[in-house]
Amino acid sequence: MTTTTPALAMPSADGRFETTTVERRDLRADDVRIDVKFAGICHSDIHTVRGEWGDIEYPLTPGHEIAGVVTEVGPDVSTYKVGDRVGVGCMVDSCGDCGQCAAGHENFCEKKTVFTYGDTDVDGTTTQGGYSREVVVTERFVVRIPDGLGLDQAAPLLCAGITLYTPLKRWLDHAGPDAKVAIVGMGGLGHMGVKIAAAMGADVTVLSQGLSKEKDGRAFGASDYRATSDAGTFQDLAGAFDVIISTISADLDLPQYLSLLKPFGAFVTVGLPPRPQQLPFGALIQGDKTIAGSNIGGIALTQEMLDFCAEHDIAAEIETIGADRVDEAYDRVVKSDVRYRFVIDTATIGA
Amino acid sequence: MTTTTPALAMPSADGRFETTTVERRDLRADDVRIDVKFAGICHSDIHTVRGEWGDIEYPLTPGHEIAGVVTEVGPDVSTYKVGDRVGVGCMVDSCGDCGQCAAGHENFCEKKTVFTYGDTDVDGTTTQGGYSREVVVTERFVVRIPDGLGLDQAAPLLCAGITLYTPLKRWLDHAGPDAKVAIVGMGGLGHMGVKIAAAMGADVTVLSQGLSKEKDGRAFGASDYRATSDAGTFQDLAGAFDVIISTISADLDLPQYLSLLKPFGAFVTVGLPPRPQQLPFGALIQGDKTIAGSNIGGIALTQEMLDFCAEHDIAAEIETIGADRVDEAYDRVVKSDVRYRFVIDTATIGA
Repeated sequence: MTTTTPALAMPSADGRFETTTVERRDLRADDVRIDVKFAGICHSDIHTVRGEWGDIEYPLTPGHEIAGVVTEVGPDVSTYKVGDRVGVGCMVDSCGDCGQCAAGHENFCEKKTVFTYGDTDVDGTTTQGGYSREVVVTERFVVRIPDGLGLDQAAPLLCAGITLYTPLKRWLDHAGPDAKVAIVGMGGLGHMGVKIAAAMGADVTVLSQGLSKEKDGRAFGASDYRATSDAGTFQDLAGAFDVIISTISADLDLPQYLSLLKPFGAFVTVGLPPRPQQLPFGALIQGDKTIAGSNIGGIALTQEMLDFCAEHDIAAEIETIGADRVDEAYDRVVKSDVRYRFVIDTATIGA
Repeated sequence: MTTTTPALAMPSADGRFETTTVERRDLRADDVRIDVKFAGICHSDIHTVRGEWGDIEYPLTPGHEIAGVVTEVGPDVSTYKVGDRVGVGCMVDSCGDCGQCAAGHENFCEKKTVFTYGDTDVDGTTTQGGYSREVVVTERFVVRIPDGLGLDQAAPLLCAGITLYTPLKRWLDHAGPDAKVAIVGMGGLGHMGVKIAAAMGADVTVLSQGLSKEKDGRAFGASDYRATSDAGTFQDLAGAFDVIISTISADLDLPQYLSLLKPFGAFVTVGLPPRPQQLPFGALIQGDKTIAGSNIGGIALTQEMLDFCAEHDIAAEIETIGADRVDEAYDRVVKSDVRYRFVIDTATIGA
């Protein structure tokens, strides 16, 4: 048995969103039903529904930055009760038993991580995401949104926040407390990186194509803000950083970025350029440097990130929109015309 | 004032070695004079004297795997005395004051690391390496060869040994004691990697083009030995390793090697392919994987490596040759026809 809930769905790769309904399963013993209040728009939603990351099954309801309130819980649910403020991110299930799950890395489950939309769930259905009024998720993949965080500003933390928190925690732990960090790109991901890195105590520099967002970057905690379009930036900052986090999903001059690292420094990408990048090994060997990738983060770490953000009074900068403006928002995200993350007020879906 | 000592020198990029003399400075207060007994042949000697890594000043005496006995010390030398068994590796000086030197990373001195041959020394002269009867080196860049190690077998540890010890120590510390390690390539570097990794307690697999050295690899401590020419190797070993150390200086299929790593695993290169390699960032992001470079190691770590090798009764496998066979040895190294490192008996130079 299922219930239906209003949702936005993309009918085809070149379509526009339609208001429809999606089905949510009846509660299993460990399930939580959530009244979705806000759903963030992530650039990966756009890539996915437009078929840019491979063929998908249409119609599809995207959305993996979900914030809402618990409305019902299964009999075995112990962590949440009706009325709790909660979130759901990029995943909704995993085996729970393998070494990766046991270590808190559900995103790398050795059997199968079930992603929040467009993926095959354990019951064989296709998962449908958070651009909807309600979701049903197993307790283990629900996180608590601390009271200090608004649900609207918290929504983007479920993907953008954890995507930056994970590499900053891992590589700053490595580099020590006085680390110098560069955040490359000042979009939805980058602006969270600046805030989180600064809150972790790092000295943060933003490397952005231009200087149009410099005032914001400094307000978010950056001590320096440089334009990558200015060749002098790479000369001035040679050997300056312990950690560089790149949010760029376009071609990069890797040796140029590696030249900005101190010995033993790490360039960590959360951005995914479509094409392979050119890596001369000499640029790594001279200085024992590292290039690493980082991909969201596990559930316990996501909870830690939310608690950290509440404690440090940081959250996403958002522009809240109604359901009728999602197509327009997609076009603006593609043009980088957003400061810094769109969030859908899901009460407007089918209203 | 200087003294002269018999040496082998390369007269030109396409020349053959000539027996000549090089000058060694009179002892400064902190200098050690060393009667060189053995000098290892490193592939980088060949690249350098053949001009493959850039123009150099001829004639040049290469050699940065130097083992010998102290014959004289300056008045301020406190660590060594006449008769001590000592070694000199890839470096002979650095500023000693910068952050990198202070941290024991003289190889990344912020002012200037002086390399053992073909480099400009602090007095403006060009350094001349260990294919000679005698060297003079400041105490700080001399290491002690423990009694348990033969000088001949110890010589290659000064470059090949430390080049593998450094990344194994760094990345196994990271991966924990039960790490699964792959060593790619079974040459002069790779065979030391197998021995050191096994002595560190790792479970070691060799990935070599073919299986011709399998018996050796297992004798050196590998528990498995696979051919990279067999596509099945990459299927069988998918997700198997915490750390892969590559000694290959040719083009690599990076995504194929990254697929062998567990989540959070590291592919570390000490090999330097001449051309940039193709790196699709997705192969790093899926699994939070790392590619790193590693370049020799500092002096304290070199001493630690020698002590570790003596304690674990490991050293290089060598073929000892006289001065008249160095040109032939170079050709054999280029053809990978050596098990596993040539060492020159320097008493034969000018004898």
